Amino acid sequence: MNEERKNWRTLSSHYVVKTDFLSLRSDRRQAPGMGSHDFFVLEYPDWVNVVAVTTQGKVLLIRQFRHGMEEETVEIPGGMVDPGESPMAAAQRELLEETGYKAGKIRLLRRVSVNPAIQTNYCHLYLATECSYVQTQQLDGTEMIDVEDTGVQRVLQMLEAGEIHHSLNCLALEMARPVLVALGS
Amino acid sequence: MNEERKNWRTLSSHYVVKTDFLSLRSDRRQAPGMGSHDFFVLEYPDWVNVVAVTTQGKVLLIRQFRHGMEEETVEIPGGMVDPGESPMAAAQRELLEETGYKAGKIRLLRRVSVNPAIQTNYCHLYLATECSYVQTQQLDGTEMIDVEDTGVQRVLQMLEAGEIHHSLNCLALEMARPVLVALGS
Repeated sequence: MNEERKNWRTLSSHYVVKTDFLSLRSDRRQAPGMGSHDFFVLEYPDWVNVVAVTTQGKVLLIRQFRHGMEEETVEIPGGMVDPGESPMAAAQRELLEETGYKAGKIRLLRRVSVNPAIQTNYCHLYLATECSYVQTQQLDGTEMIDVEDTGVQRVLQMLEAGEIHHSLNCLALEMARPVLVALGS
Repeated sequence: MNEERKNWRTLSSHYVVKTDFLSLRSDRRQAPGMGSHDFFVLEYPDWVNVVAVTTQGKVLLIRQFRHGMEEETVEIPGGMVDPGESPMAAAQRELLEETGYKAGKIRLLRRVSVNPAIQTNYCHLYLATECSYVQTQQLDGTEMIDVEDTGVQRVLQMLEAGEIHHSLNCLALEMARPVLVALGS
């Protein structure tokens, strides 16, 4: 790439919205030969997703109402990394809070940028195994989550049929597929 | 799930931002036993991404500056579905505009929701094969895209090393992996 053309310089920047849940920034930027343009940027903390397999070889799925698509979805556990928290600690915490299960082992599958065009954050995808039920769920005021421990074959069917359709969940499950297939056979 | 608890009723709704590039809605919603809460919803048109393989067996990657993460990224071609356009037509159009290549064959790998918690849209992931160069790029005023036709082995390395890190790109490439591996061997 012509090095000149990626030298976007920020002329001005302001927050259109800034809350605990969403920060939307508007930046006016200029690059040589490109003129000046406004770009929206969504600032989010990093996120985590967890493919969690129980000591019984089942996958933990969660069912909840999602306000973006206004429908009940089937997803894997996940959430936001808290300030000062490591992504791995966040994955373990979200798994525990949303399902009551504690991971025996946990490893990173991959770190991806959620959407570098419009967002600032990464999502860290984990595989937790040997998960065991240790406590009741701890949900916040707007959460109502049903937990389902589901056989591996059924989970892969749900993935392929589009019943599990959240893009970040699909990526984590595709990356965990070799492990899941080995468990399910 | 308790059926009652997913009966979120919208009490009020307004647009915080409504432009050609971004529509941010704020909905105040109430559910039995949950009280009333404000939810932000990002309305977007559907998106498309294309894993494109040339007649020479190379994968088309694009390099561009991305304003969300403020860095140059390596991605696969993609973009927004225009009003009245089919996702497949959008995939073919975006491939042509961004790279100048026309797909010989194209098929849907999977349709996923981008993020059902906060967004309204789907992303349609395609695999285009037998792509041939037919015209020069057609870019809009803020786009400056370098196209690279890259060997399959190198693309898979870039994916695994996190050099290609856009989550939707990673999912499309993981889904196309069996085809890519077959091509690369």
